[in-house]
Amino acid sequence: MIKVSVFYPNGASAKFDMAYYLATHIPLVRQKLGSGCKGIAVDQGIAGGSPGTSPTYLASCHLLFNSVEEFQSAFAPHAAAIMGDIPNFTSVQPIIQINEVKL
Amino acid sequence: MIKVSVFYPNGASAKFDMAYYLATHIPLVRQKLGSGCKGIAVDQGIAGGSPGTSPTYLASCHLLFNSVEEFQSAFAPHAAAIMGDIPNFTSVQPIIQINEVKL
Repeated sequence: MIKVSVFYPNGASAKFDMAYYLATHIPLVRQKLGSGCKGIAVDQGIAGGSPGTSPTYLASCHLLFNSVEEFQSAFAPHAAAIMGDIPNFTSVQPIIQINEVKL
Repeated sequence: MIKVSVFYPNGASAKFDMAYYLATHIPLVRQKLGSGCKGIAVDQGIAGGSPGTSPTYLASCHLLFNSVEEFQSAFAPHAAAIMGDIPNFTSVQPIIQINEVKL
């Protein structure tokens, strides 16, 4: 199982509309990726690790697939639609990474 | 539900011993945190979002708790033991953040 993690960095003027993200973007992602996507998790950053610090990421999303190949074949045909919606909910460029799920 | 995410940054000389992490560190964390910890996920970074790029994080761990207060009361008494084990599996300082689970 692999996990595609999408991190939206925090910053002085960074904006992230969680209401739009949950109501519109995630349903779009789910519909476009189809049954190849085995699970979606969404987190909202609330604090850093030390008291009084800010979170590194305003929000993050984790998408599960059976393999990198299945992710690529599910995502590639819809990349423009999915990425094109990003400016509708955030001012920041996400950091993306692919993980192997170990536990 | 809250999620404590621990990210181990990638870098030129960054090292991370996943075998030790899974066999020794995670069981230590699980035993110390006790029943307050509702779930543990471990990811190993394998690639960045663009072809041929490296992952931002060598590894990450996500710990679920009912609330920030329950996390703090579970973690504080064992912080020294848990944090003290970090040099046994990595050369890097983790980035920690606390999230509210939205989905």
